[in-house]
Amino acid sequence: MEITHIEHIGIAVKNLEEAIKFYEEIFGLKCYGIEEVRDQRVRTAFFKVGHTKIELLETTDTDGPISKFIDKRGEGVHHIAFAVKDIESALKQTEGKGIQLIDKQARKGAEGLDIAFLHPKSTSGVMIELCEKKEETK
Amino acid sequence: MEITHIEHIGIAVKNLEEAIKFYEEIFGLKCYGIEEVRDQRVRTAFFKVGHTKIELLETTDTDGPISKFIDKRGEGVHHIAFAVKDIESALKQTEGKGIQLIDKQARKGAEGLDIAFLHPKSTSGVMIELCEKKEETK
Repeated sequence: MEITHIEHIGIAVKNLEEAIKFYEEIFGLKCYGIEEVRDQRVRTAFFKVGHTKIELLETTDTDGPISKFIDKRGEGVHHIAFAVKDIESALKQTEGKGIQLIDKQARKGAEGLDIAFLHPKSTSGVMIELCEKKEETK
Repeated sequence: MEITHIEHIGIAVKNLEEAIKFYEEIFGLKCYGIEEVRDQRVRTAFFKVGHTKIELLETTDTDGPISKFIDKRGEGVHHIAFAVKDIESALKQTEGKGIQLIDKQARKGAEGLDIAFLHPKSTSGVMIELCEKKEETK
């Protein structure tokens, strides 16, 4: 697989508005977008930091994955997203090497990216997302 | 403070050699350096991913911070490092805004960077490192 860069770091937070204020006031970063991703049951807020983004994640469902993560581990880094050139091929390669996938096929994530998660049990405790920004067909 | 980019993501691992092999074989990344940082009681391995690095951290001391982190939370993301332009000024500003600092003054970290950690209790569970690459005086 060819990883071009770290697309974003996903951080689980309890309160999105408070966390946005924190990153803006303390670190001088600027939130450029808020988006609800129904499929993942989250509201997300994005900040650009060089070529990488910080994605804050607040649950919209007390039974959603971010809610469960915070119940178990508290607020903190939830996942790292690697930008890859060909997500379908990357998933096949990864699975072929014995890594457990959460998503066997890519699905749509925030900002229109095609995304898939690998299982942290297979990746030394780090939840890793693969993602690809595909050009829209006109 | 002016953050230019995410300098690295620090990941706590139990076994550095196994983790290096994992990141090389599964993700096609290349470890370009291994360094012991005595002050932090770790051995580190670095990978470049675009403009950001992944820093794997293995404890060299059963009582060291990475050992305690793994005992408490298991392997996983330990910290995010923001590259700043003036670390002394950034630390003063951060403390002035009520953030608890682990390091009140910058100290030398891996790769010769000047580094300082903020306390995760003040930063919504994310351990944040500020760092600056200073030019050497000739």
